[in-house]
Amino acid sequence: MPRPKGQSKTRQNLINAARDCFIRLGYERVSTRKIAKQAGVDAAMIRYYFGSKVALFEAMVLETMEPILDNLKQSRNQVTKKDNPYKLMTAYYRIMASHPELPQFLLQVMNHGEGDEPYEIMSKILDSIQSTVSLWLYQEKPNWSLKSDIDPNLARLSMISLMVFPMIAPHTIKEFGIKFNEEWLDKLAKHNYNLLKNGMFLPDDSDNAE
Amino acid sequence: MPRPKGQSKTRQNLINAARDCFIRLGYERVSTRKIAKQAGVDAAMIRYYFGSKVALFEAMVLETMEPILDNLKQSRNQVTKKDNPYKLMTAYYRIMASHPELPQFLLQVMNHGEGDEPYEIMSKILDSIQSTVSLWLYQEKPNWSLKSDIDPNLARLSMISLMVFPMIAPHTIKEFGIKFNEEWLDKLAKHNYNLLKNGMFLPDDSDNAE
Repeated sequence: MPRPKGQSKTRQNLINAARDCFIRLGYERVSTRKIAKQAGVDAAMIRYYFGSKVALFEAMVLETMEPILDNLKQSRNQVTKKDNPYKLMTAYYRIMASHPELPQFLLQVMNHGEGDEPYEIMSKILDSIQSTVSLWLYQEKPNWSLKSDIDPNLARLSMISLMVFPMIAPHTIKEFGIKFNEEWLDKLAKHNYNLLKNGMFLPDDSDNAE
Repeated sequence: MPRPKGQSKTRQNLINAARDCFIRLGYERVSTRKIAKQAGVDAAMIRYYFGSKVALFEAMVLETMEPILDNLKQSRNQVTKKDNPYKLMTAYYRIMASHPELPQFLLQVMNHGEGDEPYEIMSKILDSIQSTVSLWLYQEKPNWSLKSDIDPNLARLSMISLMVFPMIAPHTIKEFGIKFNEEWLDKLAKHNYNLLKNGMFLPDDSDNAE
């Protein structure tokens, strides 16, 4: 039976409650009853809208990360080297500002859940992100042209390190100066973009835009 | 009562067994009896050499990271911009090649153990590393001169992101190409060093050395 599509308030409440419960308690320790209770609806609504706990998990991750995924898809068709990565980083950090605990939770799923259903779902999502980023870096006329002495695999790893680590670093290390507000995260996006641009990429004429 | 100092085979076996047990099972689930059994010695040896489980934990972390800490201290007195960070990264990755699971375990301690004794110990160690790195970046005549538009806090965060994230990334993401062998880790150290040098630091005359 196909699941109902489209947005409803009940469905959105369930997504929000699921994100909050999974992050706070971990995937295993959360029951569909608990999520339904927090959302203020009957547990049957989870079956109605999603089918199962694991399908609710998948919908929550996909919909939370949607702006990042959209941005990745869009930027495949764009021209300037400057806009794409900077816009991508900004989109990414905006989401993180709203859900600062999400990356740590997802990393836990990936590191400790091998073989579990949530692990399989996350693997699929990450694979699809990786392929899109690869298309950026490896397409015939890449928007980002790497300097000739830069290894593309290491370039990708650096980009992901700079984006993800500040989100999963111990919050208590105050000296990092990490703040989960838009202003600081915009500054970080700009800093990362400039570091990558000067450190790995060839100069681009469209760069004079700013 | 002061604890016995110096190296003995028993003491070293206990350090090795502690590292292995803590990483595999987490701090809480490991008893001193278990560590002693794995080291093939009597549990009284832990009290004799270290005093307690938490003191053994501290000794294990400090001694495992010793080459990094030494390198940080030494490089405060060195002159060229080129050698220090590159040598530091190489020292760091050599240790990680031997204990690939260590950073993930330490991150768990920092993220989930607030208030615990191991958490307090790790905080102290990380604080001392931070202060040394700060001395590098902020001293009156810094060995590393940041470009004028680079925020020193973000510079430090970038450096740590590039060094730590590859060690804690989900091992299953094969596309990262992460390999825990010396050859690949040396390549990563060189890549990170070049990225930081071109992305954040002012050109340095001593750079022609290589």
